[in-house]
Amino acid sequence: MTDVYVLGAGMTQFGKHPDRRSDDLGADAVREAIDDAGIDARRIEAAYCGHVFQGMVTGQRILAQLGLAGLPLSNVENACSSGATAVREASLAIRAGEHDVVVAVGTEHLTSRFRGALTPDPDDPEAAVGATMPGVYAMRARRYMEETGMTREQLALIPVKNKHNASLNPLAQFRKPVTVEDVLESRPIADPLNLLDCSPVTDGAAAVVLASGEAAKQLGNGRAIRLAASALRTGVVETEPTSMTFEPLTHMTATDAYERAGIGPGDVNMAEVHDCFSIAEVLRVEGLGLFPQGKYPAAVEAGEADLGGRLPVNPSGGLLGKGHPLGATGVAQVVEIVRQLRGEGGDRQIPDAKVGLAHCRGGKAVGIEGAACTVQILVR
Amino acid sequence: MTDVYVLGAGMTQFGKHPDRRSDDLGADAVREAIDDAGIDARRIEAAYCGHVFQGMVTGQRILAQLGLAGLPLSNVENACSSGATAVREASLAIRAGEHDVVVAVGTEHLTSRFRGALTPDPDDPEAAVGATMPGVYAMRARRYMEETGMTREQLALIPVKNKHNASLNPLAQFRKPVTVEDVLESRPIADPLNLLDCSPVTDGAAAVVLASGEAAKQLGNGRAIRLAASALRTGVVETEPTSMTFEPLTHMTATDAYERAGIGPGDVNMAEVHDCFSIAEVLRVEGLGLFPQGKYPAAVEAGEADLGGRLPVNPSGGLLGKGHPLGATGVAQVVEIVRQLRGEGGDRQIPDAKVGLAHCRGGKAVGIEGAACTVQILVR
Repeated sequence: MTDVYVLGAGMTQFGKHPDRRSDDLGADAVREAIDDAGIDARRIEAAYCGHVFQGMVTGQRILAQLGLAGLPLSNVENACSSGATAVREASLAIRAGEHDVVVAVGTEHLTSRFRGALTPDPDDPEAAVGATMPGVYAMRARRYMEETGMTREQLALIPVKNKHNASLNPLAQFRKPVTVEDVLESRPIADPLNLLDCSPVTDGAAAVVLASGEAAKQLGNGRAIRLAASALRTGVVETEPTSMTFEPLTHMTATDAYERAGIGPGDVNMAEVHDCFSIAEVLRVEGLGLFPQGKYPAAVEAGEADLGGRLPVNPSGGLLGKGHPLGATGVAQVVEIVRQLRGEGGDRQIPDAKVGLAHCRGGKAVGIEGAACTVQILVR
Repeated sequence: MTDVYVLGAGMTQFGKHPDRRSDDLGADAVREAIDDAGIDARRIEAAYCGHVFQGMVTGQRILAQLGLAGLPLSNVENACSSGATAVREASLAIRAGEHDVVVAVGTEHLTSRFRGALTPDPDDPEAAVGATMPGVYAMRARRYMEETGMTREQLALIPVKNKHNASLNPLAQFRKPVTVEDVLESRPIADPLNLLDCSPVTDGAAAVVLASGEAAKQLGNGRAIRLAASALRTGVVETEPTSMTFEPLTHMTATDAYERAGIGPGDVNMAEVHDCFSIAEVLRVEGLGLFPQGKYPAAVEAGEADLGGRLPVNPSGGLLGKGHPLGATGVAQVVEIVRQLRGEGGDRQIPDAKVGLAHCRGGKAVGIEGAACTVQILVR
C-alpha cells in the first residue's frame, strides 16, 4: 500500500467573483497547484472535482479549460464535505494503484446560485418548521451555554480570532478584524447567533496535486507533505445521541483518522475545522478531542487557539473569515495545512508545525440523516 | 492488487413513479442487491451513489432509509455515466484495500425534475443555437447515412430490436414491441429522428454489491461475477476528430478496458451500450470495436445483434426500451450483465455468455467539452 503525498497546492482569492464561473475558478486553482508542484501538466493522470451546486460535468469543464483531454474524472458531492471527499477519492485512486498523480479540485460559484443567503430545498420538512441551519446551530449554542456556562462574549471570541487570522491571509474574503462588540452588535440571525457568527456566501476554488510515494520521490521538490489519513463517514439518526453539544459523527470520523495516521489528538499542531457558525468550531474541536469537552471557550479566551497558542485553530481564517465556497472549502483547508507545514504561512505562520488536521461536516446540522463528515491528517 | 466481484444485484421497476422519491427507489435497489448477495447488511462497509439531478446528499438519504449508519459514502456525478462512475469508484475503494464490501447505487427520479423532456441549462451556448442533444444526434444520424448508405428503415431497426428485448424484461418501462412503421410514423423530434428513436424520461434505481476477492470467497454464493475492468475517460475538444460518425472517446475508453481485462472485442458475448438515441447505439458498438465501422446497421438487419445473434446488444431493452433514469443507467447495465452471466436472464437469456461489456457516454454529444465515458467488462 503506497503512501499518498501532496505535491502541490493552489487556491483562488475567496470572495465574490461576479465575472467568473466555477470552472474558471477551478481551472485557476488547478493551474496554480500544478505550478506549485513544479511538474509538467501532462503528468496528471486523473482528477476528482468536488462541488455542490455547479451542475453537470463541472469538473470536465475545468479539464477542458486546461486542455487536459481524456483523463478519468469523477465529480463528487457530499454537501460541505464535497472538496474533502474529492481529496479522499483521489487518494484512494492512488492507493488502488490505478493512478500515480491525481488532482483534487473543489470549486463553487455560490453568488450566481443564490441571491443572499442559501435557501433550503422547498421540500425540506425541517426547514419548513424553521429548523434551518442557523436555527439549529442557534439552538446548539443556547444549549451549550446552558450546559457549560459559556458566555455570549466567549462565543464571540471565535469570529474575532478567525477574522484576525483572515486579516493576515491575502486570499481571505474578509480582511478586516472585528471586535467582540462588533460581533455582539451585528445583525441578529437566529438568537444568540448574529451575522458575524455565520459563515458568508463565497465564490472560490482550491486544488491539490496528490502523488504516490514513488511518484512523489521522482517528481518531488523536497516539499511534499504526507496525507496520512483521509476518513469519511455518513451520519444518520442512529449515530447521533440526543445531546446537541457533542458530535459523535465528528468523534467517530476523527477516531478513524487518528488510527489510520497512527497518532492521537495530542500530536496535532494545527487544525482547520468546519466553523460554519461560531458555535460549530466549539463543537468540532471538542468532538475531535483537541480540547476537553466544555472547555474550548475558556481555552480560546486564554489564547490557546491563537496563531501563537498551544494549538492554533483555523489559522487560515476558517469559514468565518476566509469564506465558505462549499465545494472548495475542504480542499482549501488542505492547502492551508500544506503551506503551514512547509513554512509558507506568511504572516500567519505557525512555528514548527509538523501535524495538521482538517475537518469538514456537511449536510444536516445535528442528529438527522444526510450528514457527511471528513477528517484528514497531514504530516510533514 | 485484489480482483473485484459483483456479489449481488438489484433494480427497481423502471418507469414513472409519481409517489416515490429517488432515495426510496435507491433504498429498494440496495435492499434487493444485499438480499441477492445473501449477506447481512452489516457487512456493507461503504457506498457510492450516482445521480445527476437529485440534489445534495442523496446517497446519505438512501443509507438513512436502510439504517446503515456511519458508513463512508460519496455521491458521484458524471452526467449519464454517473451510475457507472459509482461502480468504478466503489471498485477503486476495494482495490485500494480501504474496504472489502461496497455498494454502488444509481438513482434518478427524473419525472419530478422535468416536465416532459429534459431542458438544457439556460446558459448553454450550444443549446441556445439549437444544438440540443436530439439535434446533434440527428446531425450525426444524417451524416452516418450519407457516409455509409444506412437507410432510415435500417436505423429504425434499433428501437425495434431494443423494444422487443424490453418486452421480455418485466422491469422495463416499455413492454410493447414496435415495428419499423411505428418508428417511422412516430412524432418527428429532430429529422431524421422520431420519438421512438429517443430514450424516454424515466424514474428508477439500480444497485450492486461489490466485494474483494477474499470477501467474495468468504461470502460468495457461487454466483459472483468478476468486474474485470472499469474504465473512465473525460472527453474534451482535443480527443474528438471532426468526424461525427466515429467516437474516439468511446474507442479510447474501450481500449483501456480491454487492456485491463486482458481481452479483445472479439471475446465479448453481450453488450449493454448507451443507446440514448437509435443512432447512438450504432456509433457506440462501432467505437467499441464490436462491429466494423459502417457495418452495424446491416448486421442488425441480419439479426446479429438479436438475443439469439452472434453478439446481442442491449438485451435488457437498453435506454430506448428499458428506460433511462440517468444516474441509474450505468448500474442497471451491470445488473443486466450479472443476471445474464449467471443464467438468470429469463425470457431474454443469452445462451452461454461468459463476457459482458457495459458502455455509457454522458455529457455533450460530440466533439465538445464536458463528456464522460465509461466501459466496464464483467467475466463469469
